Amino acid sequence: MASWLQIPKNSPFSLANIPFGIISSTKASPRVPAIAIGEYALNLSAFASSSGFSQLPVIQPHLSVFSEPTLNAFAALGRPVHRQVREYLQAVFRADTPYPQVFKDNATLQKEALLPLSEVTNHVPMQIGDYTDFYAGLNHAYNVGVLFRGPENALQPNYTHLPVAYHSRASSVIVSGTPIHRPNGQILTNPAANPKIPTFSPCKKLDIELELAAFVSTPNGLGKPVPVNEAEDHIFGLVLMNDWSARDIQAWEYVPLGPFNAKNFATTITPWVVLIDALEPFRAPGLEPGDREALLPYLREKRAVNAFNIPLEVEITPKGSKSTIISKSNAQNLLYSFPQMLTHHTITGCNMNTGDLLGSGTISGKEPQTQGSILEQTNGKNPIKLSDGSERIFLEDGDRVVLRGSAGEEGSYVGFGDCEATILPALKLEF
Amino acid sequence: MASWLQIPKNSPFSLANIPFGIISSTKASPRVPAIAIGEYALNLSAFASSSGFSQLPVIQPHLSVFSEPTLNAFAALGRPVHRQVREYLQAVFRADTPYPQVFKDNATLQKEALLPLSEVTNHVPMQIGDYTDFYAGLNHAYNVGVLFRGPENALQPNYTHLPVAYHSRASSVIVSGTPIHRPNGQILTNPAANPKIPTFSPCKKLDIELELAAFVSTPNGLGKPVPVNEAEDHIFGLVLMNDWSARDIQAWEYVPLGPFNAKNFATTITPWVVLIDALEPFRAPGLEPGDREALLPYLREKRAVNAFNIPLEVEITPKGSKSTIISKSNAQNLLYSFPQMLTHHTITGCNMNTGDLLGSGTISGKEPQTQGSILEQTNGKNPIKLSDGSERIFLEDGDRVVLRGSAGEEGSYVGFGDCEATILPALKLEF
Repeated sequence: MASWLQIPKNSPFSLANIPFGIISSTKASPRVPAIAIGEYALNLSAFASSSGFSQLPVIQPHLSVFSEPTLNAFAALGRPVHRQVREYLQAVFRADTPYPQVFKDNATLQKEALLPLSEVTNHVPMQIGDYTDFYAGLNHAYNVGVLFRGPENALQPNYTHLPVAYHSRASSVIVSGTPIHRPNGQILTNPAANPKIPTFSPCKKLDIELELAAFVSTPNGLGKPVPVNEAEDHIFGLVLMNDWSARDIQAWEYVPLGPFNAKNFATTITPWVVLIDALEPFRAPGLEPGDREALLPYLREKRAVNAFNIPLEVEITPKGSKSTIISKSNAQNLLYSFPQMLTHHTITGCNMNTGDLLGSGTISGKEPQTQGSILEQTNGKNPIKLSDGSERIFLEDGDRVVLRGSAGEEGSYVGFGDCEATILPALKLEF
Repeated sequence: MASWLQIPKNSPFSLANIPFGIISSTKASPRVPAIAIGEYALNLSAFASSSGFSQLPVIQPHLSVFSEPTLNAFAALGRPVHRQVREYLQAVFRADTPYPQVFKDNATLQKEALLPLSEVTNHVPMQIGDYTDFYAGLNHAYNVGVLFRGPENALQPNYTHLPVAYHSRASSVIVSGTPIHRPNGQILTNPAANPKIPTFSPCKKLDIELELAAFVSTPNGLGKPVPVNEAEDHIFGLVLMNDWSARDIQAWEYVPLGPFNAKNFATTITPWVVLIDALEPFRAPGLEPGDREALLPYLREKRAVNAFNIPLEVEITPKGSKSTIISKSNAQNLLYSFPQMLTHHTITGCNMNTGDLLGSGTISGKEPQTQGSILEQTNGKNPIKLSDGSERIFLEDGDRVVLRGSAGEEGSYVGFGDCEATILPALKLEF
């Protein structure tokens, strides 16, 4: 698919993608829905109010969704509408567009609505109700389990029967580009001592977690589980996510109720929501342990191939220095699909709302330098060598971390763009 | 304090209370803020628009908060405003009110705005962003720890150093009076078998958790921890909460990341938010284990007495039968105060928003029949005898559970009203 718009061949936002987000700029204020295409954002509020959607009857009664400061209203319209809007926008941007008068030949509207990405500010695209983080990255769960319990008991008995998850913190989900302060908290500097006495300290084991995450589109009601073969229609789309983790705070606090302060200070997501329909050509098998018992029927999908082939990478750039790709993974490294996660979440009757966020869990491969967290690579002691000669056991102040993921090939990438943040020193607190 | 309004002596909503909630009725549509007083709700929207607040200058610029469908806008005004509004409403209802023309002698407005509680519908009073459940009930943590790990290791080493907590599910917080379906899920019918194979089943170990919960009023920003001696001013008020728990689902799923589906199907709260100012006369010591190490400075409160003397009770009524009080506890059975919980939550920089909900954890005493959960009383095998002759190991379908709590004495109770729900049979699901 060629476009009349100049789109760089390496752009994650090719005409095959059309991801949705929320932007602001002097020309798009205060916040408006947009799509990313090549090096531009298309302001959908301006586009809609200048009859940009005139050739798409289905959206006419709902044009107000493009004046909202979040994507929630658009997402709530449901997958058939998202699909038609995406396909219509692809048609508008195609070199052989059937609607040239709408935009290709409309210089005035182009000037108003097509904004260079470098000149817009991105925002968290949805009002998030609840954020749940799953643990579906089998290799990550195994690697971490080996570190804590040894290879014999690395995976808990429940792991291959249900997608393990915990509720996480929605308020501190932030958009790519927002710097984060190293958190303070209680850590155990001498775990072998008895009694165990914690100290108050900046986190010394700050880590990343490379994840995908799904936004919920249409709600199910309380008491209405979503059948697994209908669950994908409740998903609006995916983003890349960095679930920052303070490993030393986590180690001290997490028994018996799970991670809390170790994860609640920040979670970074990419600003552009990639629709499942855009990822459709990249369906590929997920992980499947050989000796697995049959899943209970409520988790069995008709579709056998339920992951996506999306190459992923993790890059670290020390302050003022050059970058190193420390890890390359792939979104196929998941044991459960997002439909399985959503169905398991609702099987008790739990209600999902538009804008709820489901994290996949850390996506690690099995080989060296394919892990989605630093802990797995270093075990807290074997440093990663960076290309500038420095070493990392965990993150240091000033480090800039970027996660990236793009499916497909040059000229037609379906990608997420950068999931980026720089680590600032811990706040100095006085008591 | 006597009122010109007839208030029954046993009402939890005496003139000393003035709790805030959200109601609807044919006269208050769709949803409006209200206070509860005796057997009435005062519709604050109607009261405000008929000059009811004319003698309170501080609220004049903010009267629109009383037209909102949640209490969030009112809560966000901050504690000094809540305090003045409460005291003003007490003055309006006092027998010797200084403003008789406002309401006491205004029969028209009384007829419009004073609605019998029996004729209004209550709603969840706030738009909840995130809901966090703490574990500050020392006796509960100890009792459950003994069941799982024996008395020697009942409490984890972190327990006396920090208020343990987990993120919980906000979407399924429901208001008292809403029936709940017994959840379905994965349970391990034969835990001793190897390999462990779960079955899909209605929960067979449905339990309650007797808790208090605090709503957050004013936000702190991301990266701005709240000092412990300022934390109470970020709390709008308290409700009673029943954190329903599916013990068999929990036992199978909870390692290593904590409870998830076992708690996500429903959490019941009382509809009326009792301000901390109303509970001020009932401050009393919380729990303090004798051999406790000094708390880290960020958790040390200037105020030594930081719990509340609020007698609590749990009642079960089998379908069509008579009621039994199965437990009597007290809100003093907490090791951490809500300010300590909020400060610990934010110490990493985590941001709290208006409407966030913090649960205390289960409030159990040490004596028989003072526990806040059924599991602690029965250990899953020693039945509780009910007054109708039946027995309970866990809840049965048709059981109506009511939690109650009131501080003070006859004629001036500061109470929460009923936190009530009836258990409906599990949904029959087909795959």
